[in-house]
Amino acid sequence: MNRRMEIICIGTELLIGKTLNTSENWLAKRATSLGVTVKRITTVGDDVDEIRGAINEALQREPRFILITGGLGPTYDDKTLEGVAAALGRKVAVDERALVMVREKYEAYFREGRMEKVELTPARIKMAALPEGAEPLPNPVGTAPGVLVDVDGSYLIALPGVPSEMKAIFEESVAPMMVREAGEVAFSEKSIYVDGMMESALAPLIDQVMRENPYVYVKSHPKGEERKPHIEIHLSTTAENPQLAERRLEKAAGKIYELIEGFGDPRKQLIDR
Amino acid sequence: MNRRMEIICIGTELLIGKTLNTSENWLAKRATSLGVTVKRITTVGDDVDEIRGAINEALQREPRFILITGGLGPTYDDKTLEGVAAALGRKVAVDERALVMVREKYEAYFREGRMEKVELTPARIKMAALPEGAEPLPNPVGTAPGVLVDVDGSYLIALPGVPSEMKAIFEESVAPMMVREAGEVAFSEKSIYVDGMMESALAPLIDQVMRENPYVYVKSHPKGEERKPHIEIHLSTTAENPQLAERRLEKAAGKIYELIEGFGDPRKQLIDR
Repeated sequence: MNRRMEIICIGTELLIGKTLNTSENWLAKRATSLGVTVKRITTVGDDVDEIRGAINEALQREPRFILITGGLGPTYDDKTLEGVAAALGRKVAVDERALVMVREKYEAYFREGRMEKVELTPARIKMAALPEGAEPLPNPVGTAPGVLVDVDGSYLIALPGVPSEMKAIFEESVAPMMVREAGEVAFSEKSIYVDGMMESALAPLIDQVMRENPYVYVKSHPKGEERKPHIEIHLSTTAENPQLAERRLEKAAGKIYELIEGFGDPRKQLIDR
Repeated sequence: MNRRMEIICIGTELLIGKTLNTSENWLAKRATSLGVTVKRITTVGDDVDEIRGAINEALQREPRFILITGGLGPTYDDKTLEGVAAALGRKVAVDERALVMVREKYEAYFREGRMEKVELTPARIKMAALPEGAEPLPNPVGTAPGVLVDVDGSYLIALPGVPSEMKAIFEESVAPMMVREAGEVAFSEKSIYVDGMMESALAPLIDQVMRENPYVYVKSHPKGEERKPHIEIHLSTTAENPQLAERRLEKAAGKIYELIEGFGDPRKQLIDR
């Protein structure tokens, strides 16, 4: 079963370091928890050629999901759907279903007294212009709909860059698709903390645990300061059910405890990085 | 002059959403401030094929700088240099200069009473194993050296994933290279905040300002909540000197103020997203 996913983030603000990319982190964590495997994250600027290139390269790797965030808004600089259309060799055209979604949003803003009149300006109609063959995904908390295109077995999904809108469309429309595709899969993780032991001293122990537990991914993360080493050993696994996932983690964690105890007084082994 | 740069982040912890990627943000901001243009950021896991692929693709786009972070440590899972070597079709071999750097670190830890004896285990020697033709970059605050390879006009630079070490090697060895390459270039930015005006109403105004100010990059960022719209308009530019950069921003910002005032009472235009 193809559970691979890629994330493409669009926004020059990410490339100049103006904005910290918390969206990729949220999406990666959420998709992983649903049993999907994130293989790559790519960030490019608000440029049709760059977007087209990133999408075409991702499509060639044939992931089941390509999640794109950013660039769906009303400004000239929101070029994501133009980039998607260019990548697929399709035209962009106003989609009637999307236009209904956008119009209903402005009608609601008008009823609530937040607009003087309902006017579908070109900037607003732009949010309903989708690549041909695409499906609009309702936006429960904002104006621009999300967009879904099925491309030869890869779901190309574009979500707004505003985190609240990205998350709302993900939960409402994307998460159910992932659960359906990934089937019954449980992701589980666990951390062990080791004080006063060098990472280079831990390295061969971790190697042994990984060899003996091929389904468990083990990684050490140095957390302490130079004079007070503190290492997090993070274990994670994806299994057919939560019980199996937990059992695998317990077995690997038990081996780590055993090896560290066998290593002697860890206080004698200080700082690595 | 080629001032283009790409960033490649390596670490499965980033793909499962365990770790928020603050390093890409720091590097992007710092390089931009030095006059370098970040074109793409790619994140892949701790897998030699994935790393090799990401590096080869970046090399094909011929940026001046490719900055890689993560995967330089002592554990089996630190595969960055193996990936670099695979991408370049070179072997990995212990580099004498790098080995001296690593040994001196452990000798210092020993002198400070933080180790019982200086022992260069395979895990520690691994940090001195570089792709052939590479140059080690001193690590002022940790053990693993950074790595520099000049590949047909692209500088491939690998830095540790630990933020303090990444930053220290960047400032000591990489920033001076960037200043030399980018020449006298000034990056400047400015934000204007607009309350109570819809982003879709702002869109045509921003388009006009961008058309009239081709060297200034203007982007709107919705910041408010649904009932209280608050939009940041961010302006940025890169120019030959700070005075010119400032002048360009002032001119574009002045036009934005003028257009918003001409637009009438902004309180009448509420919420967009």
